[in-house]
Amino acid sequence: MAFDLVFFGGTGDLVWRKLMPALFQAYRHGTLPEGGRIIGVGRDDLNDAQYRQQIQSRFEQVEGDKRPNSEEFARFADLLCYVRMDLSKPEAYAALAARLAERETDHVVMYLSTAPSLFTTVCEQLAASGLNTPKTRIVLEKPLGHDLASNRAINTAVGKVFKEQQIFRIDHYLGKPGVQNLFAMRFGNALFEPLWRREHIANIQITMSEELGVEKRGGFYEGTGALRDMVQNHALQLLCAIAMEPPINAHADAIRDEKLKVLRALKRWTPETLTQHVIRGQYAAGNVDGHAVPAYRDEPGVSPSSNTETFVALRTEIANWRWAGVPFYIRTGKRMASREAHIEINFRPTPHDIFKTPVGQVNKLVIHLQPKDGLELHLFAQGQSKRGQGGSGTLSPVHLDLDFDKRFGSERVGAYERLLLDVLDGRLNLFVRSDEQEEAWRWVEPILQHWAADPVGPRPYAAGTWGPSASSAMIARDSFCWSEEI
Amino acid sequence: MAFDLVFFGGTGDLVWRKLMPALFQAYRHGTLPEGGRIIGVGRDDLNDAQYRQQIQSRFEQVEGDKRPNSEEFARFADLLCYVRMDLSKPEAYAALAARLAERETDHVVMYLSTAPSLFTTVCEQLAASGLNTPKTRIVLEKPLGHDLASNRAINTAVGKVFKEQQIFRIDHYLGKPGVQNLFAMRFGNALFEPLWRREHIANIQITMSEELGVEKRGGFYEGTGALRDMVQNHALQLLCAIAMEPPINAHADAIRDEKLKVLRALKRWTPETLTQHVIRGQYAAGNVDGHAVPAYRDEPGVSPSSNTETFVALRTEIANWRWAGVPFYIRTGKRMASREAHIEINFRPTPHDIFKTPVGQVNKLVIHLQPKDGLELHLFAQGQSKRGQGGSGTLSPVHLDLDFDKRFGSERVGAYERLLLDVLDGRLNLFVRSDEQEEAWRWVEPILQHWAADPVGPRPYAAGTWGPSASSAMIARDSFCWSEEI
Repeated sequence: MAFDLVFFGGTGDLVWRKLMPALFQAYRHGTLPEGGRIIGVGRDDLNDAQYRQQIQSRFEQVEGDKRPNSEEFARFADLLCYVRMDLSKPEAYAALAARLAERETDHVVMYLSTAPSLFTTVCEQLAASGLNTPKTRIVLEKPLGHDLASNRAINTAVGKVFKEQQIFRIDHYLGKPGVQNLFAMRFGNALFEPLWRREHIANIQITMSEELGVEKRGGFYEGTGALRDMVQNHALQLLCAIAMEPPINAHADAIRDEKLKVLRALKRWTPETLTQHVIRGQYAAGNVDGHAVPAYRDEPGVSPSSNTETFVALRTEIANWRWAGVPFYIRTGKRMASREAHIEINFRPTPHDIFKTPVGQVNKLVIHLQPKDGLELHLFAQGQSKRGQGGSGTLSPVHLDLDFDKRFGSERVGAYERLLLDVLDGRLNLFVRSDEQEEAWRWVEPILQHWAADPVGPRPYAAGTWGPSASSAMIARDSFCWSEEI
Repeated sequence: MAFDLVFFGGTGDLVWRKLMPALFQAYRHGTLPEGGRIIGVGRDDLNDAQYRQQIQSRFEQVEGDKRPNSEEFARFADLLCYVRMDLSKPEAYAALAARLAERETDHVVMYLSTAPSLFTTVCEQLAASGLNTPKTRIVLEKPLGHDLASNRAINTAVGKVFKEQQIFRIDHYLGKPGVQNLFAMRFGNALFEPLWRREHIANIQITMSEELGVEKRGGFYEGTGALRDMVQNHALQLLCAIAMEPPINAHADAIRDEKLKVLRALKRWTPETLTQHVIRGQYAAGNVDGHAVPAYRDEPGVSPSSNTETFVALRTEIANWRWAGVPFYIRTGKRMASREAHIEINFRPTPHDIFKTPVGQVNKLVIHLQPKDGLELHLFAQGQSKRGQGGSGTLSPVHLDLDFDKRFGSERVGAYERLLLDVLDGRLNLFVRSDEQEEAWRWVEPILQHWAADPVGPRPYAAGTWGPSASSAMIARDSFCWSEEI
């Protein structure tokens, strides 16, 4: 299956930090289809050899066992070549077309790892140069717009040139093994589905927290914020994977149809819920891992009076038969107490207590996505009942564990590796359809508008904590709490 | 809470192998009530000091960290004393009564660790000597009869002297932490109950296998066999714990009422089911752990033409709304491939496959009782999907684990320790009520009668295997298989 994979933005950060290492892993695993060519496109004046050398020297900054030795890299580098292009100039596309015409391929993948402002131009120019053939696939990196209108504009422009089946919108969270496993867990097992509904589930919590601040990306982050950066895409995709009805098959459109239905069923915002159920925060100075760290407003590239949120906690519901009345809590933030991504399915308490269970605790299933990847099923068991308590002592919390990394070890495939292989195979399951994306923006937009009109701004929270206390108060009003507060 | 604990059969095997070590553990754990006296009763002519010495020397045969050092034993031995009695002689009971009258106690426990043929005599004599006071509790070790009539005879005789609330019928399986935990798991957690029924469970398997043969107990075993030794009591008690409806509280009678309902709902035998759903086996010579071992018929004390079964596999159903149509398989045997006791809850397959699952495998919950004590939840996950399989590769079997011994460590309380402490506390939860016991015999008796009339006798199986192939054939007719056959 010969392919050409073209990286627009071929000298950019994402390419050498994520995409090239992922391709190299696939190459090393023997899963990269044979007969491939990887073409970096950029403004720098490089020949193939110089491009290979640039990638190699940057690879050396890659950590751990993903770093190739030089012999390995030399073989991989045979696949790499470079085309110099000024993406704004129509004539540049002719050079690319010529390079692609050098040989017969089954597929050409155009990976747009550029500023989103260029997406429309690039697509139009690809069309003008006849490079939008049926064998072309186009990959779009986020952000695809900053609100509903701009997202629609991009999708419309791209849609004029490519069919939906040719468009691969990346949400790299969907490539994480833990997220793929969510589908397998829910629909490959008979055990969960009967429990997976309002009758048995009290609430669901999605947490994606980082210890890092904005680092050097303050300038970019100022115009983005946590809602656009994490909630509109990753968090809602996780929510869909948790809440969707079983699809009729495992094909892309069956899955995406069901996800879309969830997004459409998300409760619409009201002035009350916008005030009470959405908390925005911004980190103040604090301590992370014992080190003093500055406030967001003191980060390079950030306005000293910035109102950009670095934290969001929100509560929503899904208005359908399965989920009516079950709160879904989402929170994400930078400079939080720890780096983790997990989903907690909190079950209802036993309807009739004949044993004493620990106060405030319930059965729960925790799906860990990051940094570890695994499952924990929290139960109560009879433990140390020493004296005459056969049957009536207080039960003790226990959990059953499964560590996917331990179970599958080095076989596991990284997020970008998985997604790139899927693009090459033409599998759209783990990519986002335009209508999903628009629906997610439609739901997020009232929050953006509410914030824009709200003079108060985000609530400060000390770096290294779990966000502003309003986040705890919000969930406490439902008589629940975040997992670390039990 | 001062107590006197009287061991009839005080110089017997059970006392020094199980009961004294269990009491010593409780003493060591600080859970044995203060002010206790442990009185061994036997025919040997011993004084207190000699009895203590005899127990001590036998303790030294106890393995591992349960063996006391001599200083520890000396303190424990202060509790021990001895009364010489010929249990058949009425005047002997006067001596016991005198010894008990030496001091005021809250409870006197009479533990009948004697031949069951003495139960009636001892009870009558205790009554004749005025030792059946309301503060007396009586503990009966199995076997309580060898069929329904003899069981009833014992229960009736004991019932004339003691009230049901004073009678503690031991089934030491109920004292195992894993079995107690079955109750805690089912009724202290919200997760299992919705799945715990015919809609979601395909079949349930109870396995209790030993590697040992009859050892030196051939003479006893000849008149007993696996059905009486293991099925009538332990296996049916496990079945009740798995299948019972949630009791209204954790008190003894609420639990025992529900267990009784299960026993009453067991499908009655027919000539067809007696032939097809009950398999008896007897071990032939074979290999266990690489050592050649003799056939049952060549064991000491066993008739060369013995028809005693050393293996039983059977299939039954519970005729109620929760379980109708769900096969419960029980098997137990000596000289089998490994020593283990576990319960497997096999769930139904997914109703609609959108993923490929490994052929013949299903979700299951395994409750390990022996040698380890823990839970395994078997699921399917997406593992090593390397190449373009994001979503449609064959799922891999995985399991979540919980090892109770690791979780609770040295806090765990052994079966006899638990049961003795419960007797001293007057808690009947883990003891068998007479009506349960009779109902179990009532269900077992048609099998005994069928076998007695069946000239064919048990099917031979090679020692070190999982029993006769008829056992596999029985379960295969339902399109299921034993776990080791997957």
